[in-house]
Amino acid sequence: MRILVLGGDGYLGWPQSLYLSSKGHDVTIFDNLSRRHFDLERGFNSLTPIEGIHERVAAWHEISGRQIEVCIGDTLEYGALAAVFQNVRPEAVVHFAEQRSAPYSMIDREHAVYTQTNNVIGTLNVLYAIKEFASECHLVKLGTMGEYGTPNIDIEEGFIEIHHNGRSDVLPYPKQPGSWYHLSKVHDSHNIMFCCKIWGLRATDLNQGIVYGVETEQTQQDARLATRFDYDQIYGTALNRFCVQAATGYPLSVYGEGQQTRGYINLRDTIRCIELAITAPPAEGEYRVFNQFTEQFSLTQLAEMVVAQSKRFGLEAHIRYRPNPRVEVEQHYYNASHTRLIELGLEPHLLNGAVLESLIDLAIQHRAHIDKNLILPTVNWRVTKNDIDNLSS
Amino acid sequence: MRILVLGGDGYLGWPQSLYLSSKGHDVTIFDNLSRRHFDLERGFNSLTPIEGIHERVAAWHEISGRQIEVCIGDTLEYGALAAVFQNVRPEAVVHFAEQRSAPYSMIDREHAVYTQTNNVIGTLNVLYAIKEFASECHLVKLGTMGEYGTPNIDIEEGFIEIHHNGRSDVLPYPKQPGSWYHLSKVHDSHNIMFCCKIWGLRATDLNQGIVYGVETEQTQQDARLATRFDYDQIYGTALNRFCVQAATGYPLSVYGEGQQTRGYINLRDTIRCIELAITAPPAEGEYRVFNQFTEQFSLTQLAEMVVAQSKRFGLEAHIRYRPNPRVEVEQHYYNASHTRLIELGLEPHLLNGAVLESLIDLAIQHRAHIDKNLILPTVNWRVTKNDIDNLSS
Repeated sequence: MRILVLGGDGYLGWPQSLYLSSKGHDVTIFDNLSRRHFDLERGFNSLTPIEGIHERVAAWHEISGRQIEVCIGDTLEYGALAAVFQNVRPEAVVHFAEQRSAPYSMIDREHAVYTQTNNVIGTLNVLYAIKEFASECHLVKLGTMGEYGTPNIDIEEGFIEIHHNGRSDVLPYPKQPGSWYHLSKVHDSHNIMFCCKIWGLRATDLNQGIVYGVETEQTQQDARLATRFDYDQIYGTALNRFCVQAATGYPLSVYGEGQQTRGYINLRDTIRCIELAITAPPAEGEYRVFNQFTEQFSLTQLAEMVVAQSKRFGLEAHIRYRPNPRVEVEQHYYNASHTRLIELGLEPHLLNGAVLESLIDLAIQHRAHIDKNLILPTVNWRVTKNDIDNLSS
Repeated sequence: MRILVLGGDGYLGWPQSLYLSSKGHDVTIFDNLSRRHFDLERGFNSLTPIEGIHERVAAWHEISGRQIEVCIGDTLEYGALAAVFQNVRPEAVVHFAEQRSAPYSMIDREHAVYTQTNNVIGTLNVLYAIKEFASECHLVKLGTMGEYGTPNIDIEEGFIEIHHNGRSDVLPYPKQPGSWYHLSKVHDSHNIMFCCKIWGLRATDLNQGIVYGVETEQTQQDARLATRFDYDQIYGTALNRFCVQAATGYPLSVYGEGQQTRGYINLRDTIRCIELAITAPPAEGEYRVFNQFTEQFSLTQLAEMVVAQSKRFGLEAHIRYRPNPRVEVEQHYYNASHTRLIELGLEPHLLNGAVLESLIDLAIQHRAHIDKNLILPTVNWRVTKNDIDNLSS
């Protein structure tokens, strides 16, 4: 199948592209390299050394004999986007090409505007490009479980049947996103649903949990195929941060009461889910939503798991609770449905001791390169201007 | 009270500014004149002659002795927006400064991008300006009843109590908007709700029905105070179109089956509603939603009312059903709550014979200036490029 991977140079886009290529698909990556630009601008870096995009695909060709095409371009530039659609005539588009960090979006007005413009208008351009140049193409769009917020009822997959005043309807699940980034994904979801209705596009919106892990069958084949591991306050997840803190003898920083519960998914399952979505496309005009995660944990649970596992390395990790830089409910009900991908055939890799061990081991291996100044949060949701260069330690 | 009216030169913004000024408020208008620019660009015009913004406020000063300040600027230019906030230090902001036409937003990709950028990012800037320069200020934001779409259950005012799997919560009412324009308003609503939560802003989101009428106590005082009357395919409403068609002997064009039902409100009630919202502001951190309409009609009902009333002028109007250029359900349940503004004291002016007579009379008076080429729709929701200069007759 001809597959266009928007944002194919990123943490998820790269292993996704490798995986789809390994399965014999014709993969083209479209990426504006904005994630790398941020690192260059701010002095951030992936803890795992990563190659440039051209070196990556050359290494993959050398190892597998397979060719991934690369096109450097921006979804905001419609000419570039239209050209890649016209050249590739994709049968599926996997769309990772969004600013993906909540703290980034909350730095200040400029970063909020960038996030909502890049994500919402970029996706609007993608929708027009599909309709104009590849109208049968299946859009697989990365959303986030964070779109739902933390309602006091079960979270369903995209839609909910509501009974009200003696009548009923199945309606889009109400959203309560918690950052400009999360909001941009909600806006996208509404825009995509609309295009399925008016133009008959077919789309899968994947409300993904927090992804962990760096290893896939393909990335493990050669160090040059590695994907990134972020532990900094902007792009790092809590789990990565905990592993790095455990490896360096710093307290594991839990924000607020630590009872915030979210869905999680292994990188291997993420790339498999997207394959499952691609191989079972929706009908013309169908907009479907899958909740793409496999387990739920609270922050404290995650931290305690890292503390326990780090003992195997002789590390004496402990937890320190810190003021929450985010505005979010810290004690809440959370029960989210996630059956549709299982029904399609997903066999989850769960967050067990071996997985945690490999992540802590990765942090230990690269300990010399950890910049502790990047870890603690300086982006406060409550103010309109945060100075992320003024890092606390 | 110091009140900033964003978009104060428009169809609603102008009579709103006059009304608030007449009540003794200090009114400042901020407007980028984009609506007038569109007329200049495309050869469209208001059927009622309207004065320039500077002539308008000079006439108002001459007639009332009151001063409305004018600042020409764009919500997308944060410097200009910040300056007016710093100068005025508003206690309330009434936000009309959005691209307000669904067909405009559906012309092509460029108009879709303009609509979502202008409306969503413009409002994002307004939110930052409030937080940074007038954090106690009450934002009164114009939304639309079109945000809800046509669900098969009663439409509530912004929020709905959902019972699901033995639990319950009050959640944002699910939205199913029907154009890029309507979508932009849904995006705004989510963004505004978020700012109330994280920054403690106070906001009233007015999901307004379709407004009709041009006369208010103030606009009637002098021809130079008139507000616009649009009958064209881009900015005109169905009711205005019907009146113009009746006045010129053309069939009243009803799209589709004509059973599409929407909420309607008289211009006099709109400006009163906004005053009611301003004088009873929400608490710090409160995001509230009012459905701002007073009656529901189907398209066919409206057309039949115009046919009946036009007989008083000796006109033999009749209805012609036409293919629907929009993608929308034409037979649907529709029952929307609208009690909160009534509770605050709104006394509705309903769409009776006298009101219809005055609108038809206005069309007859200005018959010589009606450009029939502007009336019939050339913007089709189903395609990505519409040529609005290629007007059908």
